[in-house]
Amino acid sequence: MKEKLAPWITFRSDIKVLDCTVRDGGLINDHFFDDSFVKGVYQTCIDAGIDYMEVGYKGSKGLFSRDAFGDWKFSDEDDIRRIVGDNDSPLKLSAMADAEKTDYKVDILPKDDSVLDVIRVATYAHQLPTAVDMIKDAHDKGYETACNIMAISTVSEAEIDQCLETLTETPVDTVVVVDSYGALYHEQIRYLVEKYQNAMKDVGKEVGIHAHNNQQLAFANTIEALVTGANRLDSTMMGLGRGAGNCPTELLIGFLRNPKFHIRPIYDFLAEHVNPLQDTLDWGALVPYNITGQLNEHPRTAIAVLKTDDRDDYAKYYDSLVAEV
Amino acid sequence: MKEKLAPWITFRSDIKVLDCTVRDGGLINDHFFDDSFVKGVYQTCIDAGIDYMEVGYKGSKGLFSRDAFGDWKFSDEDDIRRIVGDNDSPLKLSAMADAEKTDYKVDILPKDDSVLDVIRVATYAHQLPTAVDMIKDAHDKGYETACNIMAISTVSEAEIDQCLETLTETPVDTVVVVDSYGALYHEQIRYLVEKYQNAMKDVGKEVGIHAHNNQQLAFANTIEALVTGANRLDSTMMGLGRGAGNCPTELLIGFLRNPKFHIRPIYDFLAEHVNPLQDTLDWGALVPYNITGQLNEHPRTAIAVLKTDDRDDYAKYYDSLVAEV
Repeated sequence: MKEKLAPWITFRSDIKVLDCTVRDGGLINDHFFDDSFVKGVYQTCIDAGIDYMEVGYKGSKGLFSRDAFGDWKFSDEDDIRRIVGDNDSPLKLSAMADAEKTDYKVDILPKDDSVLDVIRVATYAHQLPTAVDMIKDAHDKGYETACNIMAISTVSEAEIDQCLETLTETPVDTVVVVDSYGALYHEQIRYLVEKYQNAMKDVGKEVGIHAHNNQQLAFANTIEALVTGANRLDSTMMGLGRGAGNCPTELLIGFLRNPKFHIRPIYDFLAEHVNPLQDTLDWGALVPYNITGQLNEHPRTAIAVLKTDDRDDYAKYYDSLVAEV
Repeated sequence: MKEKLAPWITFRSDIKVLDCTVRDGGLINDHFFDDSFVKGVYQTCIDAGIDYMEVGYKGSKGLFSRDAFGDWKFSDEDDIRRIVGDNDSPLKLSAMADAEKTDYKVDILPKDDSVLDVIRVATYAHQLPTAVDMIKDAHDKGYETACNIMAISTVSEAEIDQCLETLTETPVDTVVVVDSYGALYHEQIRYLVEKYQNAMKDVGKEVGIHAHNNQQLAFANTIEALVTGANRLDSTMMGLGRGAGNCPTELLIGFLRNPKFHIRPIYDFLAEHVNPLQDTLDWGALVPYNITGQLNEHPRTAIAVLKTDDRDDYAKYYDSLVAEV
């Protein structure tokens, strides 16, 4: 293939964007979004030409109380339809199911009975056998499927290779590189995307990217992944998501050159629905999240320190982490 | 050279970091920093192992009123020495002089009379003849010199090549790729750094990077430049700088693996001196800056709209820019 002179103003038509604002953003408000917000995301995704919207989790009602969590922890069919009706649009709808935290056999309906199009299975490497069963279940029910192997920055090379080999033998459609801790630099993203692509190339599965913004690299790493060849890109409106948040949809759509994408509806949505959330919710690449990213750790201690009077004492927080090493 | 297995945990000892917090940050407060802030930057740079600190501009007192601007618009010798004494430290001190906005022949002292080590000449491409004279003047006075060709994302290929060819014939030590508008994606950064390196390789000049954060890419683009081979990296504390700001020093030092760098002193400085500025100063990758970056424009209209009641009406602001195209 002839090398392009200025690839950044061309596009690949097989690139698809998945907005997971309601799903990942739900991690910072226990999934309590009001209907106008969720409808806003839905309509904005349609208007912006986005390919997929992830509406929430399929969480187990045995593990999680219906009172303690909002609708999008469970994504029941009736709740989804309250927002999207029969989804008479080109936008595909996704829900995420966490390995060991979902009653997938019961709560994921046959595709014919659901307005959902895609089930994404989130798993840690050691839970992969459970994830494989979930993938098969969702595939057999008629869904497109994806597998997000989380916290990949902490998984050994041999384990990653084993996961990928195992997934080649499943019906999963997409395997997603997930930088849960926002720890990875772009050389590492390239390395992993190439590894996933090499593993999947003979079985025709797509590779995706789900980046976190701890080091202000979520957008850059998403670009790196797509330049390397990943065709499934996750993002959220204004980066809304746990801790530092995600690759911002408005930056990603601003970069992508496929004329099917439209950025202006996103600006309206951000102004009307996301900006007001900043008064009550805390997300973005704050220094404590920089630190957990640099140290390749889960952000839970940063989330905790940001709720204390020591939230701005970065050196003290840093000391608390490196002293434990 | 053998390809490295994991280059992101190795280092190149010839990489040097220049913190320009006081210089670039001064663009958002008319250069009115109190002495404790400037001393804090100075001591933090020393403690963190940073190579260069840029203290401010050498602005013309004929063009700029001493009353309207703080000391760091002019960086007079006495003012610098009030902060650093004779600078008995390994930290090198830099000042920036803008082409056509400086009385460099008078205001830049002979090196023997100054505690400054470096003069960086900032120029638009069309001002290069003036910049060349300034470079020669500073070099002849005994300084290390650099040339920052600004707003490179708007300069034609032929003009860039002409600038670089002209600079090879000067005594300038470093030529800096400057993404003034935060418009460039990493493929473009790589392209430009390679171009600058190719132009400079026979004359032994270094290539630098100065990135802006309009699209949350300043840190990522700085990494891209250094991976490509740039050895002079600009950054500012917490990204303080005009508009969206710069590559954050705390992220850059967190990435660099040379053991001479130390990140903990930076966290102390951020907490004590930079966080409080957020109450009165507006910088960071806000949506209006995303938009000027995407459109490859100067941030001045975004700076203006952020001072109005329409600051959050992103679609209206976007319309105002694209309607003019």
